[in-house]
Amino acid sequence: MESLKQSAERVPAEASQASGKEFKIGRERIDKMSAEVVDSNPYSRLMALQRMGIVKEYEQIRQKSVAVVGVGGVGSVTADMLTRCGIGKLMLFDYDKVELANMNRLFFTPDQAGLSKVEAAAKTLNFINPDVAITTHNYNITTVDNFDRFLDAIRTGGIEDGTPVDLVLSCVDNFEARMAINTACNELNLYWFESGVSENAVSGHIQFIKPGETACFGCAPPLVVAENIDEKTLKREGVCAASLPTTMGIVAGMLVQNTLKYLLHFGIVSDYLGYNAMNDFFPRMSLKPNPTCDDRFCVQRQQEFMAKPPSVTNVPEAESEGPLHEDNLYGIELVVEDDDIPTGGSDKVASGASNIVEGLKLAYDAPVIENTSQVATQDDVSLEELMAQMSGICKSSKE
Amino acid sequence: MESLKQSAERVPAEASQASGKEFKIGRERIDKMSAEVVDSNPYSRLMALQRMGIVKEYEQIRQKSVAVVGVGGVGSVTADMLTRCGIGKLMLFDYDKVELANMNRLFFTPDQAGLSKVEAAAKTLNFINPDVAITTHNYNITTVDNFDRFLDAIRTGGIEDGTPVDLVLSCVDNFEARMAINTACNELNLYWFESGVSENAVSGHIQFIKPGETACFGCAPPLVVAENIDEKTLKREGVCAASLPTTMGIVAGMLVQNTLKYLLHFGIVSDYLGYNAMNDFFPRMSLKPNPTCDDRFCVQRQQEFMAKPPSVTNVPEAESEGPLHEDNLYGIELVVEDDDIPTGGSDKVASGASNIVEGLKLAYDAPVIENTSQVATQDDVSLEELMAQMSGICKSSKE
Repeated sequence: MESLKQSAERVPAEASQASGKEFKIGRERIDKMSAEVVDSNPYSRLMALQRMGIVKEYEQIRQKSVAVVGVGGVGSVTADMLTRCGIGKLMLFDYDKVELANMNRLFFTPDQAGLSKVEAAAKTLNFINPDVAITTHNYNITTVDNFDRFLDAIRTGGIEDGTPVDLVLSCVDNFEARMAINTACNELNLYWFESGVSENAVSGHIQFIKPGETACFGCAPPLVVAENIDEKTLKREGVCAASLPTTMGIVAGMLVQNTLKYLLHFGIVSDYLGYNAMNDFFPRMSLKPNPTCDDRFCVQRQQEFMAKPPSVTNVPEAESEGPLHEDNLYGIELVVEDDDIPTGGSDKVASGASNIVEGLKLAYDAPVIENTSQVATQDDVSLEELMAQMSGICKSSKE
Repeated sequence: MESLKQSAERVPAEASQASGKEFKIGRERIDKMSAEVVDSNPYSRLMALQRMGIVKEYEQIRQKSVAVVGVGGVGSVTADMLTRCGIGKLMLFDYDKVELANMNRLFFTPDQAGLSKVEAAAKTLNFINPDVAITTHNYNITTVDNFDRFLDAIRTGGIEDGTPVDLVLSCVDNFEARMAINTACNELNLYWFESGVSENAVSGHIQFIKPGETACFGCAPPLVVAENIDEKTLKREGVCAASLPTTMGIVAGMLVQNTLKYLLHFGIVSDYLGYNAMNDFFPRMSLKPNPTCDDRFCVQRQQEFMAKPPSVTNVPEAESEGPLHEDNLYGIELVVEDDDIPTGGSDKVASGASNIVEGLKLAYDAPVIENTSQVATQDDVSLEELMAQMSGICKSSKE
């Protein structure tokens, strides 16, 4: 707990003034959100959501605490959006530094090169909206010690001391960090969103993980699951992934929009929403948990969820009778909500998968989609083909 | 031409240094984009698009000039994304000032309240990427004189002097400004994208307008078309539209992603892409031009387009034989590319339309979609129903 306190620093409202020449105070703090329509009210357009009949009580957002893990291309924009929406509390986790090579995404500016991402982000965000309580957590959550700090931080990081955060948003760029978040959220029974952008920069996705109710990150073999090959060795010297501010902005937008829908109770929160930039295709689906998941807390949450009265679940009658495809590869059930799955990528996935070395299972391969106008609909694809397409198109190893 | 020169100011690279305390030079200019993978290279992740097989020649982006009309919630993020992508030239049009009430969208910061939007944006963008040539145009394009200045500016605003811009992006929030852009682009035969976000903040769209090839903004009656009621009188004192950084960020992302696809020749550029935040629905469709459009240049471009050999058009055989529904309201043809149109909103549109005062035609009504899980697919909706749904959900009067 000593180390936790050291690393989790609340950024004071006057930090931006005290520490730098380049930042001054943007505006004074506001005690209560007002709906008054004047140019000087930063909340008028948000409070208008109530008058428009979208949100019942917008100011509830001040009672919400969200952890953003990974403050890169997706995470920084995610934090920016939540800050401008007036979220109560924001916990920022990252251990990386800003580089000029990050300037092709939104948010960070060239003068911040060399600064810690969480510190630079907290400073800017505090300047934009001093009403948001921001804490920074500058460490790698995947080491044994830091994982415990992370677990403790989100377990006690709620608006009221000692309560957990309301939601965890994963904006990390690697498998290990996603698994760490998955493990922590399964154990704490916390809802979280996974997000990712492909290495070729033209697809991305978000996934809502409700322990026991939807598939966890460990339920389906994700990413590059190598037996002896470390993911890091795949990142060769002199080779870097592509990224675009557009794709990352859209994925951050999808992530925060669904976060707002969940926190403020409006609209339908998507379980899985993909984005393929090549043909502007946005697949939606639901993934049910794997009863034989390796994560024991996942299995425990599944049992708890099944024990709940059916009225509190969202599973329609027809679907709850049994798995649609009992013999599928992963023992999990997939419910595709979009029926125009583009088939252009499936051959690539298949051929790509057959070319890999033994012991290396690909589930996150990002196929290069041909520059063609083929966006054909195919209704008779199997579950396995769909899974391959979805994971090929939408899941990835990159934030 | 005198006044054009006065208003169209190139922001020099050293402007940020010369003019302010709060901005310093972010980085030096870079003569040639490099693909070298070093932390100090702001273009490495973009040039990686070539190695990933997405873009053939990324550096072509430096030879492109884009006009962004309206630098508000969508336009500022649009300009930010294009700047970070290293666009050759950016022309910014707006005559509004930054207000604290704009802080619920991305990009502007509280210290910029009171500054002209184009000046504030140019300063920030120049700081982020000094390689982009930015010009500011601080006037209202809808007045008679200013319309001519606008026409002249985009006619001669290309990378090479005297050539037109490569694309115009409309990020304005009113009907008059959209019609001004439409008139100018039809006359100059320039491709442009329309964009919009609904007054209730939970839907938006982009539309690619290729004069003569796709429906122009005047082909279908858009927005609130009142005979005696001015749009401004609908904006009552003490009432403001809702807006969200999420929706605006997603619409800007869709806009710039399709801009990149068009300028750099990859993927499929969407003719129309909508976004409904309530259920994460992204309808796509194509709108063919109205042969009896009121805009004479639109009709002229249609004749020119029809005279082209069929190989250069993208119209499939089956569709080009004749209109699918000859007796539809607007005499234009609609090709829906998504087949899972949500039907929840159609009643709202219908009942809403029957309640309006006489002489006021609603085509841009934004229905409040019920908080329900109904996302049913209905195949036998008529063209009129689809049009009503699409326009109700996706088109709007607000940027």
